[in-house]
Amino acid sequence: MSTKKTSLKDIAQKAGVSTALVSYVLNGKEKESRVGHEIAQKIKQIAAELNYQPNHLAKSLRSGKTHTIGLIIADISNPFFANIARVVEDEAKHNGYTVIIGSSDENAGKSRDLLNVLINRQVDGFIIVSAENSEEQIHYLKEKNIPFVLLDRYFPEIPTDFVSTDHYKASYEACSHLIRNGYQRIGMIAYDSQMFHMQERIRGYKDSLRDNNRHFQKSWLKEVRINTIENGVKAAIDEMLAADRPVDAILFATYSLAINGLKYINELRLNVPADLAIVSFGQAEVFELYYCPITYLKQPIVLLGQTAVELLVKKLKNNLNEPAQILMKAELVERASSTAKPVVPT
Amino acid sequence: MSTKKTSLKDIAQKAGVSTALVSYVLNGKEKESRVGHEIAQKIKQIAAELNYQPNHLAKSLRSGKTHTIGLIIADISNPFFANIARVVEDEAKHNGYTVIIGSSDENAGKSRDLLNVLINRQVDGFIIVSAENSEEQIHYLKEKNIPFVLLDRYFPEIPTDFVSTDHYKASYEACSHLIRNGYQRIGMIAYDSQMFHMQERIRGYKDSLRDNNRHFQKSWLKEVRINTIENGVKAAIDEMLAADRPVDAILFATYSLAINGLKYINELRLNVPADLAIVSFGQAEVFELYYCPITYLKQPIVLLGQTAVELLVKKLKNNLNEPAQILMKAELVERASSTAKPVVPT
Repeated sequence: MSTKKTSLKDIAQKAGVSTALVSYVLNGKEKESRVGHEIAQKIKQIAAELNYQPNHLAKSLRSGKTHTIGLIIADISNPFFANIARVVEDEAKHNGYTVIIGSSDENAGKSRDLLNVLINRQVDGFIIVSAENSEEQIHYLKEKNIPFVLLDRYFPEIPTDFVSTDHYKASYEACSHLIRNGYQRIGMIAYDSQMFHMQERIRGYKDSLRDNNRHFQKSWLKEVRINTIENGVKAAIDEMLAADRPVDAILFATYSLAINGLKYINELRLNVPADLAIVSFGQAEVFELYYCPITYLKQPIVLLGQTAVELLVKKLKNNLNEPAQILMKAELVERASSTAKPVVPT
Repeated sequence: MSTKKTSLKDIAQKAGVSTALVSYVLNGKEKESRVGHEIAQKIKQIAAELNYQPNHLAKSLRSGKTHTIGLIIADISNPFFANIARVVEDEAKHNGYTVIIGSSDENAGKSRDLLNVLINRQVDGFIIVSAENSEEQIHYLKEKNIPFVLLDRYFPEIPTDFVSTDHYKASYEACSHLIRNGYQRIGMIAYDSQMFHMQERIRGYKDSLRDNNRHFQKSWLKEVRINTIENGVKAAIDEMLAADRPVDAILFATYSLAINGLKYINELRLNVPADLAIVSFGQAEVFELYYCPITYLKQPIVLLGQTAVELLVKKLKNNLNEPAQILMKAELVERASSTAKPVVPT
């Protein structure tokens, strides 16, 4: 970086031409003008020598291109989103874009503020992990023709481009896996949220029970509020275990729910999987530290992030000709926390 | 949000006045003008009814205030930074500021690009967790009088405002704790980095050994490269254990180093702390899942983030009258992974 800002006037003086001509050349319009090649080269060379930095802000106002992508994620302190943000950044850089990130804290109001701030900062487009109740913002972006791609979460009733894990299938597969391995009463701890991805995870669990001829019990499904997660998870587990016929397996709908659950299961000195089998939506790194490796649903973080950038860049270049609605498969990584239950003779 | 953008002209037409007058009033200049109070009120009311959104970009160019803070962190996928980002956001919002985040991936070039992008987007000031070799950028910000506060990492040779953990003291305390608890040969696994905070952690470890009359052995300190962390940590542990008199305790200089180390220690079926005591710089949540709770240095994430925002906001309001260089204490949370070693008769 230079220590003082070079102006067009500085360049003009050194080159012995008018400021208007310098502006013309440096904005890539020399072909339209009658400027000779030689003088154009001279101006460019002087600009380089003086380390001229164009005023991107003013330039953006004219060209409407900033090569900046706004990434709005639901919660930056959640490792899933933090990791996906890293992927988006890498892939964007690869495509010549810089990423500016904002975190909505799962709060629609904050998400709206961030969108406004970033629209005013002239980002070219958005990648958004939506917060609950933010449908209006999606409609707004559509009406304004602001390019965006939804990531990980989408609104089924709003036609948009998105790339997401197939939450329904992942959950369905996890529950079916537990049933196949001999678990009888499978509980689920989810968030108390109307977000579609959460509802899909619950639906997958219930449909798997039904398709495997298990009768879903209301007491098996616990929906915990995100802002009282620690006590919520404890209460949920207490209730599940206090039943006449307690659950023998729990499917955690998110990584944070699982962490809280595993801590409490440790406190209760329950043995995984003998007392309680565990499957979680996932984050590998942490689960590997647990004494009993945890079976988890590995979301395709890298592919999700890369594809979101790819779709957005295509849109920005007007190369995306049809709606892209991509569901990706989560991989069930089977480990010790859900191994086949020994068959006890009755 | 309204569905179509209201222009000054729209308001002018509805109010039956000139566009210039509307602009005058909405930019808060009605006192300077001779506009009557009544007509000013009318214009404001119509603007509100039409949900007029001022063009912040143009406005920022005039006023130089955007109420936006740029936060540049070293690596968004590191939970320490992701959590601190969350604190900065909360505290900034509390003060009426929105935060835009960029992650430098510990890369000075990327950090410089981000600074440029955000300066061009007219943020009011920066909070920065510096990447290695980014001193030049700090000099640049100082020369340009762009307000900033360094967070967690600083350059001792550049006078700046900063708020940081006292990395030296934390490391000193961790090593002294291991010595007090009877461990004889204490190793340290750190990053191969010239960053001051990393060097301070190493210096604290060495000084603690010296002050406790232990002779530091070169083979006890392993410096691992961040981009080959997994194999680097494995090799470091292998070498430390293959020595004639192997280490009986390891101090991990970062959370990521510890996670990799603990995974490998599990693979080796070593018993913590009987075979190897562990202390790590830290992140509580994950360590609680380990079979043997890990002693860790709890960095004051909330206080660090809040203080950084507080200092920056004071600077932005020209209320910071003297340099603020704040070192905060990390708390050593003592747990089972470093309990007192049973004294074996020799």
